[in-house]
Amino acid sequence: MNKTGIAVHGGAGTIRKSSMTPEKEISYKDGLREALLKGWEVLNKHGSALDAVEKTVQTLEDNPLFNAGKGSVFTNEGRHSMDASIMDGKNLDAGCVSSVSNIKNPVLLARKIMDHSGFVFLSGKGAEEFARIHGLEFENDEYFFNEFRYQQYQKALKENKYQLDHSEDSPADISPDLTDEKKFGTVGAVALDSYGNLAACTSTGGMTNTKYGRIGDTPLIGAGTYANNNTCAVSCTGDGEFFIRTVAAFNVSSLMELKDLSIYDACNEIVHGKLKNIGGEGGLIAIDKKGNIVLSFNSEGMYRAYTKNGKDIEIKIYKD
Amino acid sequence: MNKTGIAVHGGAGTIRKSSMTPEKEISYKDGLREALLKGWEVLNKHGSALDAVEKTVQTLEDNPLFNAGKGSVFTNEGRHSMDASIMDGKNLDAGCVSSVSNIKNPVLLARKIMDHSGFVFLSGKGAEEFARIHGLEFENDEYFFNEFRYQQYQKALKENKYQLDHSEDSPADISPDLTDEKKFGTVGAVALDSYGNLAACTSTGGMTNTKYGRIGDTPLIGAGTYANNNTCAVSCTGDGEFFIRTVAAFNVSSLMELKDLSIYDACNEIVHGKLKNIGGEGGLIAIDKKGNIVLSFNSEGMYRAYTKNGKDIEIKIYKD
Repeated sequence: MNKTGIAVHGGAGTIRKSSMTPEKEISYKDGLREALLKGWEVLNKHGSALDAVEKTVQTLEDNPLFNAGKGSVFTNEGRHSMDASIMDGKNLDAGCVSSVSNIKNPVLLARKIMDHSGFVFLSGKGAEEFARIHGLEFENDEYFFNEFRYQQYQKALKENKYQLDHSEDSPADISPDLTDEKKFGTVGAVALDSYGNLAACTSTGGMTNTKYGRIGDTPLIGAGTYANNNTCAVSCTGDGEFFIRTVAAFNVSSLMELKDLSIYDACNEIVHGKLKNIGGEGGLIAIDKKGNIVLSFNSEGMYRAYTKNGKDIEIKIYKD
Repeated sequence: MNKTGIAVHGGAGTIRKSSMTPEKEISYKDGLREALLKGWEVLNKHGSALDAVEKTVQTLEDNPLFNAGKGSVFTNEGRHSMDASIMDGKNLDAGCVSSVSNIKNPVLLARKIMDHSGFVFLSGKGAEEFARIHGLEFENDEYFFNEFRYQQYQKALKENKYQLDHSEDSPADISPDLTDEKKFGTVGAVALDSYGNLAACTSTGGMTNTKYGRIGDTPLIGAGTYANNNTCAVSCTGDGEFFIRTVAAFNVSSLMELKDLSIYDACNEIVHGKLKNIGGEGGLIAIDKKGNIVLSFNSEGMYRAYTKNGKDIEIKIYKD
């Protein structure tokens, strides 16, 4: 079998070992492993990179620990507003969705948009209508309810602050540092399949107490997600506004294509150069056509994992 | 005064001389000239490129001939759904808005989002709420009503076709070729000011009979709009989906920054290379830090104009 590989992230930010418990660490790592292996199974059966990243992100969307799908945070109106995107490096096909509620798996909707809408990017009520016509699974508000997320939301409401991130602290210790910590709740995956095709996808439940229909980088091709067989597949997580302004995901690909940088140097230049230069915090995962994988971030931590063969799995949270 | 310049487009597509009348040509050219000169006045008084492109696009939004603001086409629900974006090449600040109705000038809202929201991209009802709080001007549905656009919409509805474009044919001759012609209704401007700053912005009323909350390239930084003082400012118009998948506007900038291409060669590679290779039709306007201006398209025509000194104004519609 040709080289294959898959990487996953579950968000980046100020993830402090001091505010973690061994039990919580295990839960996060288990969640990442499960999602990674679901995608790996697809690759191992000679499935496509596209199906693999979709499966991995779907698995994370179903896990309430991560801010996407079931685990989505609350908006200012007490709703859940979700975004996702997916891109096929083989032909640059893409599907994106923003500002949808009650869709069980926004990544499946992004894929359906790519395959069946004739468009690339659908949003809001219109995207939900498209989802209904195409038989996507809906869930009621209770499915997305989570006591911890609700407390985050109530606190953010009271303080009249946007919560630019999601915090994984236990409810008891939110108070002092909920808004001091920056944790970017996004999930994403990138993969290379045995046919040499690359794919990327990203999904998010947005920001706690967010207002005004804010859209971050997650559903935007070029900013939060990009895949091109000639270069790499990238999925980002972080301060969305900075990833949009630096066109972060596509920028990695450009540096490889036009400046002939390796995937390591290209990711490094974006994460520790262009993003950091304008104050952008977060990280990204990337894979190239040779199966090289990079998981890079300029924040304290990033939930991340990868495997190149399904056996040697590396799962990390902090810098080391 | 240092070199300055400004360029404007009013959409690209299959614009046939045979379906034009001398009177219509004059109306379009007058509209482009008026908008260009409004922006030029700003530059001439040592105003910023940002203010200049905003003023130019606002003027086009107020002109019912162009598919943006007042001249916006009808969606499937018989509404007007508008998108816009603006970017400052000095600091990579950006503001974007999608899927708003009844906002008189979406470009002013994009600017307000950039300057006052703390976010980059707002959408839908939330963006309208932000607009209300910040005193943006609203207009009722009658303001946006236009008999010709309404006939386009009715015809598209009847044929159950999306109208991927806007047609400038007189109502009487819509029937045979409304959907054969591809005309991309978007307006945009790029400018270089006397301080050496670049800026770009783009605005659209979308596609006739569009559904599902479709978002095109117009509000997307990197796809439809991009500005960076180190390279260029770009505004696109065309088959939005292809401009998203090729990250067209930022791609021009990347080719200049990383491959050291001239603005002419960079635009050429995107419009006649990367876009055309995947079937993408349309065009773009661009200006670099030396004041070089490119107005490039792979469709039959593009409403376009530019000036470098406010006196020599070039205004064109067709290829020659």
